[in-house]
Amino acid sequence: MLTLFASKCSVSVASAIMLEETEAGYKLEVLDLFQADQTKNFYLNINPKGRVPALITPYQMFTVTGTILEYIAPDFIPQAACSAARVREIIPCLASTMHVNHARKVRGARWADDPVAVEKMVIKVPETIAKSCAYLQEIISGPYIFGSKITIADAHLFTITQWLKGNGVEIKNYSKLARFEREFATRPSLAPVRARGLL
Amino acid sequence: MLTLFASKCSVSVASAIMLEETEAGYKLEVLDLFQADQTKNFYLNINPKGRVPALITPYQMFTVTGTILEYIAPDFIPQAACSAARVREIIPCLASTMHVNHARKVRGARWADDPVAVEKMVIKVPETIAKSCAYLQEIISGPYIFGSKITIADAHLFTITQWLKGNGVEIKNYSKLARFEREFATRPSLAPVRARGLL
Repeated sequence: MLTLFASKCSVSVASAIMLEETEAGYKLEVLDLFQADQTKNFYLNINPKGRVPALITPYQMFTVTGTILEYIAPDFIPQAACSAARVREIIPCLASTMHVNHARKVRGARWADDPVAVEKMVIKVPETIAKSCAYLQEIISGPYIFGSKITIADAHLFTITQWLKGNGVEIKNYSKLARFEREFATRPSLAPVRARGLL
Repeated sequence: MLTLFASKCSVSVASAIMLEETEAGYKLEVLDLFQADQTKNFYLNINPKGRVPALITPYQMFTVTGTILEYIAPDFIPQAACSAARVREIIPCLASTMHVNHARKVRGARWADDPVAVEKMVIKVPETIAKSCAYLQEIISGPYIFGSKITIADAHLFTITQWLKGNGVEIKNYSKLARFEREFATRPSLAPVRARGLL
């Protein structure tokens, strides 16, 4: 049995979506980040990183979204080496570029102690996120990133699109990204994710 | 035929190492980052991101280290799902955490425009990098990260260990990491990489 620790609107939602897409049996544990659940001892004893997601498998715990998605849903990666690499190439763009830039809005203290420096990073968030949206606008085939078949990257991107408004970026300015978001929002896998309060 | 665009001491060295480990035929194009080759038109026409590495395949260009390593060397990832996920889990730790923190030392302007804010990020580099080294010290089995068989993560980590001194971190304070670095440095694959001026 798999156990997923996740929280509302965080990147961990991507893992919940993919668990639903694959119809895997899993137990969901929801943490409340506003109550700082992720820093409480009960959770640090499970995942010392103090972050979500954490996927507990019978053998090992995984805490990196791209890794978890690929572990849960290997069939959501194309078999051909080049196509698989295209999917794997976009995950770090979402995780290392978009997510890290988004995180500067609320977690700048990870990268500088000075509050003014943190504030300066917050100011730059809409600019850096808009740059990533422009990049995605170029590569999305439609309706999903790589055409009509969903991949693990789509669950990851959909989760991130939910942050754009808060990051000061209007999704409607990126027609392909907006269409992707509308299409993905209709997937049946989202109903249980919404019902459990993650979206 | 594959073509790798790489530069001395950058993360692109990991891709060159893995091309040598797999004895793949490839053409190497070395960019001089001190001459800002990566921002010149001839290169931007190839890779608009203006960064290295870039691996040109007959079908597609890839620019993310983890993706390139897995594309070049699928046999350097264990077949068992859980073992494969362990390898894939560490790559983003190297790329999103260690590399991004290292990059703050010289490329802070990516995340803030204010020079003082950039300076404050530089100050925090040794602290954040040391934290990552402590994490690696816990997970390295020895001699390589996952024991006696090398994986793509080892080439990635070895490349990053070459930056530690410049980041204000003494590798000798992390015995397993230091042993890993010494062992990996003896691999025959490094000779051609050194001969071509990348290390």
